[in-house]
Amino acid sequence: MRVLINAIQRTGNPSVIGLDPRPELLPSILLEGAQTPRDVADAYFAFNTAVIDALYDIIPAVKPQIAMYEALGIAGIETFIKTNEYAQSRGLYVLADIKRGDIGSTAASYASHLCGTPQIEGMPRFDVWHEDAVTVNPYLGSDGIAPFVTAAVATNKDIFVLAKTSNPSSSELQDLVIDGSIPHETVAEHVAGLLEEWGESTRDKETGYSHVGAVVGATHPVEGTKLRKLMPHTFFLVPGYGAQGGTGADLAGLFDSNGLGALVNSSRGIIGAWKKAAEIPEFATREDALAFVARSARKAALAMKDDISQAIAQ
Amino acid sequence: MRVLINAIQRTGNPSVIGLDPRPELLPSILLEGAQTPRDVADAYFAFNTAVIDALYDIIPAVKPQIAMYEALGIAGIETFIKTNEYAQSRGLYVLADIKRGDIGSTAASYASHLCGTPQIEGMPRFDVWHEDAVTVNPYLGSDGIAPFVTAAVATNKDIFVLAKTSNPSSSELQDLVIDGSIPHETVAEHVAGLLEEWGESTRDKETGYSHVGAVVGATHPVEGTKLRKLMPHTFFLVPGYGAQGGTGADLAGLFDSNGLGALVNSSRGIIGAWKKAAEIPEFATREDALAFVARSARKAALAMKDDISQAIAQ
Repeated sequence: MRVLINAIQRTGNPSVIGLDPRPELLPSILLEGAQTPRDVADAYFAFNTAVIDALYDIIPAVKPQIAMYEALGIAGIETFIKTNEYAQSRGLYVLADIKRGDIGSTAASYASHLCGTPQIEGMPRFDVWHEDAVTVNPYLGSDGIAPFVTAAVATNKDIFVLAKTSNPSSSELQDLVIDGSIPHETVAEHVAGLLEEWGESTRDKETGYSHVGAVVGATHPVEGTKLRKLMPHTFFLVPGYGAQGGTGADLAGLFDSNGLGALVNSSRGIIGAWKKAAEIPEFATREDALAFVARSARKAALAMKDDISQAIAQ
Repeated sequence: MRVLINAIQRTGNPSVIGLDPRPELLPSILLEGAQTPRDVADAYFAFNTAVIDALYDIIPAVKPQIAMYEALGIAGIETFIKTNEYAQSRGLYVLADIKRGDIGSTAASYASHLCGTPQIEGMPRFDVWHEDAVTVNPYLGSDGIAPFVTAAVATNKDIFVLAKTSNPSSSELQDLVIDGSIPHETVAEHVAGLLEEWGESTRDKETGYSHVGAVVGATHPVEGTKLRKLMPHTFFLVPGYGAQGGTGADLAGLFDSNGLGALVNSSRGIIGAWKKAAEIPEFATREDALAFVARSARKAALAMKDDISQAIAQ
């Protein structure tokens, strides 16, 4: 997690911007005349690069959500990978939100996201995804996580495992209380315990944080504060701030006493900030539209940085 | 689920073959000289089509595991999609093992796997994945499942949600007993209840099965029999038979009284059957190797069909 922490300290900004393009988040001029998934994917790439160019000097990381790209098939995934490469070329840490998870032998294939193509005699391993970290789903237990941890350690990258997600129905499974647990713990809290174990042998000597992070939503501040205490060596990725309802005040308990320990995500709140402008001009050209998206995103990202700083300072 | 059930009845065979190529499952001649991920992906496609050609008339469905293709990046995913298209062209039901899952708005993008590219003015929706069903992870709860159900109903396709997976550490989360549940139920059993609810409005009048299936591993026969009773309207996808240790005898309790209700998967046991041949010849050409793979796969698939038939008959 040291690479991420260094980037946060360099920018003084523990936030990550979600690159989750959808048709309704793009100015309509960018999709005018689109006939194929590739046309849409190309528009997404222009949109993403405009956002990255507007933000790369004030944020440590971006979080592309692969679902939006998979929705366009091959052309979309090409844009996803090109976006990752472009973000890395501008010095950003790329946290790919892919939420993969499977049994051990299959998870080993998914771990190629971090460690490159499988070993084949006479062929080098290719970094085909250009990701610095991925999100992982814990439902299958340790044997589905272990290959990701191995790959993360080997490449000095990271994983973030879902513990308590930001969505309303996260309670259905994650808040179930486990029989016989003393003190009573929920499924998410049990996952927290597993997460500390999974990361234990991978802790960074200087910061104390392991290569295994946790996803903990901003929308559950009381539970989040409890999870912070249960996972002292686990860095948090915090979705749910902004468009999903989480506020700066909800974040304080997710950070450690040094003001570290959490990376707060906003997606729509930043890349869709242009839609909330007091006045949206008529765009004469695609360049005009992209420039407006970029200016609005930067303004929103700076406001978010201030909001989080205040939350941590309190 | 009617499309799948019809295919099972037509072939008299409730089994699905996993198309999960990995370097070690291919005769080495197929990877000779491979220099790039695309070379490997092309070898996987040749391997898959040989297996499909050998089996299409005796099986109802194939289950490509996307992890093996993602391991090769874009070239791999192209082979995944081409494999799906080829299998559908031979009349097979394609159950894509993608185990996706996310919050509602993101799950709606993932649902494009079933319902095609997003709606954009002036552009048709493209079927970019060529899948008849997908696997889904329930850790995020109902709002992450609902978009998949909507897409499945709209397209007459299906989803299979993870309940009790086949791997050893599935117990870590899935077997936790929930406090205050009467009678005591595990997380997997709780998911079973949710699954019946999620599928309730989508039940097929003739067969009683909904568009929402469950993944229940063959490696836990006692728990599987219990889950069968808890989910009378839920079709099962059953991994773990064969290479993972599940036997024909373990399967009986997963079927309903009509000998339906479950689709048993084998991957390595079929596509890697050639490696267990009493004598593996030296392959002079790639065609020789593919023919041997194909013959071995057909023999193993027929043996599996017999084994399952016996289990159901008992």
